[in-house]
Amino acid sequence: MIDRLIRKIEETGNPSVAGLDPVYEMIPENIKSQMLKSYGKTPKAVAEMFFAFNKGLIDSLCDIVPAVKPQIAMYEKYGLDGIRVYLDTISYAKEKGLIVIGDIKRGDISTTAEAYAAHIGGVSIEGEYFDLWKEDAVTLSPYMGFDAIEPFIKPCNELDKAIFILVKTSNPSSTELQDHEKAAEFVSKWGELAMGGNGYSKVGAVVGATFKGQGERLRELMPHTFFLVPGYGAQGGKGEDLKGFFGTDGRGCIVNSSRGIIAAYLKDARYGGQNFGDAAREAALLMKDDIKGAL
Amino acid sequence: MIDRLIRKIEETGNPSVAGLDPVYEMIPENIKSQMLKSYGKTPKAVAEMFFAFNKGLIDSLCDIVPAVKPQIAMYEKYGLDGIRVYLDTISYAKEKGLIVIGDIKRGDISTTAEAYAAHIGGVSIEGEYFDLWKEDAVTLSPYMGFDAIEPFIKPCNELDKAIFILVKTSNPSSTELQDHEKAAEFVSKWGELAMGGNGYSKVGAVVGATFKGQGERLRELMPHTFFLVPGYGAQGGKGEDLKGFFGTDGRGCIVNSSRGIIAAYLKDARYGGQNFGDAAREAALLMKDDIKGAL
Repeated sequence: MIDRLIRKIEETGNPSVAGLDPVYEMIPENIKSQMLKSYGKTPKAVAEMFFAFNKGLIDSLCDIVPAVKPQIAMYEKYGLDGIRVYLDTISYAKEKGLIVIGDIKRGDISTTAEAYAAHIGGVSIEGEYFDLWKEDAVTLSPYMGFDAIEPFIKPCNELDKAIFILVKTSNPSSTELQDHEKAAEFVSKWGELAMGGNGYSKVGAVVGATFKGQGERLRELMPHTFFLVPGYGAQGGKGEDLKGFFGTDGRGCIVNSSRGIIAAYLKDARYGGQNFGDAAREAALLMKDDIKGAL
Repeated sequence: MIDRLIRKIEETGNPSVAGLDPVYEMIPENIKSQMLKSYGKTPKAVAEMFFAFNKGLIDSLCDIVPAVKPQIAMYEKYGLDGIRVYLDTISYAKEKGLIVIGDIKRGDISTTAEAYAAHIGGVSIEGEYFDLWKEDAVTLSPYMGFDAIEPFIKPCNELDKAIFILVKTSNPSSTELQDHEKAAEFVSKWGELAMGGNGYSKVGAVVGATFKGQGERLRELMPHTFFLVPGYGAQGGKGEDLKGFFGTDGRGCIVNSSRGIIAAYLKDARYGGQNFGDAAREAALLMKDDIKGAL
């Protein structure tokens, strides 16, 4: 999947990913009123709002970004209906040719880790195979060590999937318990178990954009690790800070923006709620230029 | 909720929790064949197997254990149908008077952490409140620091809920990235934000049973932290090793067993698949005696 991702990045000329992290306050009024009218003040109404919003975003972005990253928490918040449209969003994005990175940050051990691995590995029931979650890649937490990662290695290799392991997140309190050099060492080592054809492993790392020097240091420590970089835009990261996150081949990195793209219409008076897709497209193209300009 | 948990532990005389972590291979043949017949070789069939199994277990255990801990991964593995019976299991356990600890180990930041906090905080939609997940407490990962924990503090205080934060897990590779003394220091400090009435905080800790000396050390470091202790039984922990995990008041700790209870019928020739509930009940009572005997 890392090789497919690299190909899609080169096709679109865009090493960035749109985070599909809807929150209620972002939903354009026309969608909101339509769903409240159809489904009442219910979780189902909000779920349907999210799906309509996401479809509009995907339609506007699918030829200019290589991938989308839905954050499962935003959907999980709304219970079963929310999870349903998380799945519907993934299916729709894949129909439109996008690579999907499920931002799930799961991390557990033993039979539990094996169960979570169904996100990319699917399940077999009496010989019948089901790919129920459909993500091309997922994010994982390394806090419990390799026991939490191991069951994901097989689907990376056998089903052309990938994982991105938290190494250094973009938030202020990430300094409290993350020993990112130690995490980098482990992720790099685990990565040898699932190398892709382009010199990058299918075991990638999440490295926040908000700590420039540390991103450069981690690139040195992990030359064969593909970076998923959150924290661009709304969280403060800029294109000019990101050059050192990329490999010397100009690859090895995909930068995420969520609010900066999907809620762009709220920040730009030229756009109203009817044109949220156009605003997202313009924001995504500006982000692309910002990052490409820095490389 | 910690005070409620302490009360339930004293009512039942049992400081242990049954982990409702079903896997396909554990399902008794009669349930398996019935559901395959009704629903075919589908995720829905497996989900219904899990729910029938869980209902039998809950019926057999609800007067002798204070709480159950469903592991969401086991259900998430089977997609939307799986999540549905995770929710159905929680509702059924609560109807039977049990406290429910959702083993979700979520951990993320900012608006994402707020979204996950719906597990114990519910959601409001245009003034209507929904408690969609219904857990009394959930487990969390501290890898991203306090940013991942903060949104859960308010429902702990305002809705009488609790959280258990991973400090030292029970698996071999837990040594790779867990600095458990540092995590203990943070969890203890965060705990001051949500003290219960019995001297224990609603911010608890997950401390694995398989590292005896470390459990005792963590009890010293965290005198006001309630411990959720996995790793008993199938993972190797024994009652006699656990004395030091409890506070000097004989409280402060609840020990989990999953396979050792729920799959007990597979290890004991006196029981067949029809009697899985009786076998679970006997295993739970033996566990209670083992732990109480050591205190």
